Amino acid sequence: MDAMALTAEQVQSLIARGPFHQWLGLKVLRVGDGEINIRATWREEWVVNPDRRYTHGGILAALVDLTADWALVSKTGRGVPTIDMRIDYHRAAMPGDLTARGKLVKWGSQYAVSEAQVFDKDDVLVASGRGVYFTASPKA
Amino acid sequence: MDAMALTAEQVQSLIARGPFHQWLGLKVLRVGDGEINIRATWREEWVVNPDRRYTHGGILAALVDLTADWALVSKTGRGVPTIDMRIDYHRAAMPGDLTARGKLVKWGSQYAVSEAQVFDKDDVLVASGRGVYFTASPKA
Amino acid sequence: MDAMALTAEQVQSLIARGPFHQWLGLKVLRVGDGEINIRATWREEWVVNPDRRYTHGGILAALVDLTADWALVSKTGRGVPTIDMRIDYHRAAMPGDLTARGKLVKWGSQYAVSEAQVFDKDDVLVASGRGVYFTASPKA
Amino acid sequence: MDAMALTAEQVQSLIARGPFHQWLGLKVLRVGDGEINIRATWREEWVVNPDRRYTHGGILAALVDLTADWALVSKTGRGVPTIDMRIDYHRAAMPGDLTARGKLVKWGSQYAVSEAQVFDKDDVLVASGRGVYFTASPKA
Repeated sequence: MDAMALTAEQVQSLIARGPFHQWLGLKVLRVGDGEINIRATWREEWVVNPDRRYTHGGILAALVDLTADWALVSKTGRGVPTIDMRIDYHRAAMPGDLTARGKLVKWGSQYAVSEAQVFDKDDVLVASGRGVYFTASPKA
Repeated sequence: MDAMALTAEQVQSLIARGPFHQWLGLKVLRVGDGEINIRATWREEWVVNPDRRYTHGGILAALVDLTADWALVSKTGRGVPTIDMRIDYHRAAMPGDLTARGKLVKWGSQYAVSEAQVFDKDDVLVASGRGVYFTASPKA
Repeated sequence: MDAMALTAEQVQSLIARGPFHQWLGLKVLRVGDGEINIRATWREEWVVNPDRRYTHGGILAALVDLTADWALVSKTGRGVPTIDMRIDYHRAAMPGDLTARGKLVKWGSQYAVSEAQVFDKDDVLVASGRGVYFTASPKA
Repeated sequence: MDAMALTAEQVQSLIARGPFHQWLGLKVLRVGDGEINIRATWREEWVVNPDRRYTHGGILAALVDLTADWALVSKTGRGVPTIDMRIDYHRAAMPGDLTARGKLVKWGSQYAVSEAQVFDKDDVLVASGRGVYFTASPKA
């Protein structure tokens, strides 16, 4: 199942099937071997604090999780279940689209470790983290 | 700043100020000393897989983060910045409202550790996790 | 493989086979269904800071990892590989034996989540954390 | 407190004060700005499984923790308290010295995020992880 040559357009189609992914306005920018870049389109509902207007950490957590997950798509051909996820918050994310870069850390046929970084519109790192993903084939 | 007697209604007002909290349809069910119970109202946009219809892990991550954070409100009087967060996914969360229970693990005047569990509409545990929160007073 | 009735003595024998476990002076105090209590015997080499004399966080991490792992022994019958582990440090652990209590969070035939707390000689919580463990049978 | 020009020898002296560090046979190989490379000297007591002879995950956790911590020494001038730590295990670490490379992820005057990778004697990645460290000055 290694090294599928899925294009960014093909991965975009897979991702866009999910209503939550649509709500996040996800745009697949690039797909590589164990790598992916995804942009998310800012929306007012992301805001946690109406005065200071930064984005809720849950949005950043969702981006780390899904970007690390889809960084595996060149090997999995699909999104796979997350076993666990950890995120560090580095700076408040102010209004504006966010870009996430995902990268495989260690592949395994049972589970894989993958990481992602989230950048704000000025390309400043706002959050980063890792997940463990369940890569075994679903039971027939 | 310990043991403020904030009621569930008062905490509901604080939480409802956030657009993302509104989108999640958060309802504060109970506030205790270092404890909180919150319900989130299911919506179609939570779905990640249109065939199997379970909720995206990012929604569960947001619930763990915010519930663990607001479990501290009896000491902080406000939502505080998350330093880092970790979540374990236990089962697919099928459509339906989710209930999250948060509980302080260890208070500190610089940072605190707090945890949360998320249950589905049948009260089955679907995810749980922990965060470290920055509790020092904001600089004047 | 569920509900093996392994006694504390039997688990002690399994654990004592490991040289690192011997070095930690591990003593199995109690084994339950998805639970274990283990004591570790303080030694001078645990100290990180010769002036303030507290125990190195790596010792606490080892205790969280192994205690959460062996909390599964009623289901696994053996120690199993750790997939990942996370630990929160709550207080400096001063010289003295440490006691760790482990507890299954969620069992699965592929992987399980388990947690542990570490207490100092005065029964004060000094660290706690969680791991994900690989529970699938080793390939024949 | 930025950009102290501590040499590897000076950091070695600081690290070697800790009995646990001595037991791990730590050797500071290189110190850079927000970076450090450290070697640990294998010893029989590291073994968890007397048949398969791999190193206990607690040793790897200690190495991730301390290496990520001391990667900050160019800014802190000392080892600082760990707030929390997370480690992913990638492969069994067989007998032989281990080398760990630490790198600052995000500096802050209250807390910092730092990461480390651990390699076996053949330079294969066996574990990696991250910690959050308390960088505020100790109270006078």
